[in-house]
Amino acid sequence: MKSNCTLAEIAAILRTRQRFVVISHARPDGDALGCTLAMTLCLRQLGKDVTAWNEDGVPEKFRYLPGSELVTQPPADPQTFDVAVVLDNAVENRAGTARTAIAHADVWINIDHHHTNPRFGDFAYVDATAPAAGQVLYELFRQCDLPLTYEMADNLFAAISTDTGSFQYPSTTARTYEIAADLIRLGVNVGDLSQKMYESYPRRRLELLRALLNVLRLTSRDRVASFALSAETARTLGIQPEDNEGLIDSIRSIDTVVAAAFFEELGDGKIRISLRSKSPKIDVSKICGLFGGGGHQLAAGARTPGTLAAVQEKVLQALDHEFDQP
Amino acid sequence: MKSNCTLAEIAAILRTRQRFVVISHARPDGDALGCTLAMTLCLRQLGKDVTAWNEDGVPEKFRYLPGSELVTQPPADPQTFDVAVVLDNAVENRAGTARTAIAHADVWINIDHHHTNPRFGDFAYVDATAPAAGQVLYELFRQCDLPLTYEMADNLFAAISTDTGSFQYPSTTARTYEIAADLIRLGVNVGDLSQKMYESYPRRRLELLRALLNVLRLTSRDRVASFALSAETARTLGIQPEDNEGLIDSIRSIDTVVAAAFFEELGDGKIRISLRSKSPKIDVSKICGLFGGGGHQLAAGARTPGTLAAVQEKVLQALDHEFDQP
Repeated sequence: MKSNCTLAEIAAILRTRQRFVVISHARPDGDALGCTLAMTLCLRQLGKDVTAWNEDGVPEKFRYLPGSELVTQPPADPQTFDVAVVLDNAVENRAGTARTAIAHADVWINIDHHHTNPRFGDFAYVDATAPAAGQVLYELFRQCDLPLTYEMADNLFAAISTDTGSFQYPSTTARTYEIAADLIRLGVNVGDLSQKMYESYPRRRLELLRALLNVLRLTSRDRVASFALSAETARTLGIQPEDNEGLIDSIRSIDTVVAAAFFEELGDGKIRISLRSKSPKIDVSKICGLFGGGGHQLAAGARTPGTLAAVQEKVLQALDHEFDQP
Repeated sequence: MKSNCTLAEIAAILRTRQRFVVISHARPDGDALGCTLAMTLCLRQLGKDVTAWNEDGVPEKFRYLPGSELVTQPPADPQTFDVAVVLDNAVENRAGTARTAIAHADVWINIDHHHTNPRFGDFAYVDATAPAAGQVLYELFRQCDLPLTYEMADNLFAAISTDTGSFQYPSTTARTYEIAADLIRLGVNVGDLSQKMYESYPRRRLELLRALLNVLRLTSRDRVASFALSAETARTLGIQPEDNEGLIDSIRSIDTVVAAAFFEELGDGKIRISLRSKSPKIDVSKICGLFGGGGHQLAAGARTPGTLAAVQEKVLQALDHEFDQP
């Protein structure tokens, strides 16, 4: 499915309207927050009134992002804006309370890189070849001569780096590396920012990794690795939701493994499923679709009701079934 | 200390002489092997007779590098060459048997990026601002119009990526990212190569990580993290030397940690020390120097006689002392 507008049309709206709200998806990752902040800072440079919301605010581990204090949790009373900008969000209601706090907006802009994005909104620009929504925003800012400050560069670099697993995923292209070079010339301090992104985890995260390695399971003839985090273990170790990010990569890295799965017992009676694949033959967005979720071919997620053990079994069976396909 | 020659002078030797041997340091990492192979493939493109040696051959985990079958362990009988090319090797005798198997070479070329390199050899080109020897080789090939094939690009990309922790270390510059973009345009498949570099570890490596996390120590008021691998644990888990690479990064990533240390009991009565620092104030090459080793400010190593426990204590004390300096 194609975009229904050009970047120039989006830039024209950014330049001509006055009251903006910028949102993304709840439980934000580096791409979601980096984009929210880069867009917010750009609009401020243009002299606009900008509100930036996320249902979860800015998790502690992302406070290093320049301008992070500008993103707040949405208020109880819905508000009205000229323009709502939705970034890196393929499923409209994944914005949660940040979506419902918008009573009305004259114009809805949707900028994303998820191929499953249904192109909601008045102006939907989705580039499914981009490895991060941050890369799409970079093209918007550069191609349309919008402001691109050092603080924006830091946010875009963080968005792209975290969503490509530090420039490693198959979606990463020569263009992605060129953009990173340009952002560094704008002032990004690679070592400093990388340390904040990848080398600043609380000690409890290593304790969590140790606990998870103790319950590691290999199934489907060692082609699937999985582990599960119970609410009790999370409580004992004092785990915050953001502590889990990236832990799945440690089990995906086993040479025989094609798909990795992480199961997390949430407080609301639901189980969060995270799946990663190394092969286009095992499309994990399809599996997550069976459980009401979605995402990319090689990285997807879902939240589904059930017990930890039952959901793990069902997903492992679905994965095993995929390996049986011709 | 400056280089004693230009890249053009080195290129002239590569073009005019015929019999080459290419070596690096023993216990090779991605930069050492990527450079050895890129240079070997370049010389073959130029129609030269090329021998490539490494004391340890090519460890299993690096067999994905194009041309890896060209690197062999050196023979018992020393041989004579027109030119010996030493790459990514700051300490001449670290080449081990690959050095002693060279009875004579008319010309010695030394290309490196370690600031501690004493500029040995007839033509020593050392760029201490480059994050990897692979980046220096790239500049040589491009600036001097030497061959640069897809297979060479793969090797240079692997060299640079592994020596920058996937484009994250402080030494990584905009130029590094531009080089990566150019190598991708030459044919490097980022996703495929990254998977081979970072997501293809044997299962025993995770078991090793679990074992090490169980003996994790935090000292110097949580600013130093360390763990030690006994020969017995290594034997029980069936650990190969290359399994350890990068494990130190997992403990460096604790937010309070400034320096990380990994101690490994070798078979020969010696202990291998690996140190990483996050701050120029803690120069780990200085600490390793106390134990007969060397390296970079933020990443260094040494091998020293002693017991695992005694060496660990001595190094932790030396690190603690560093934190007391004004």
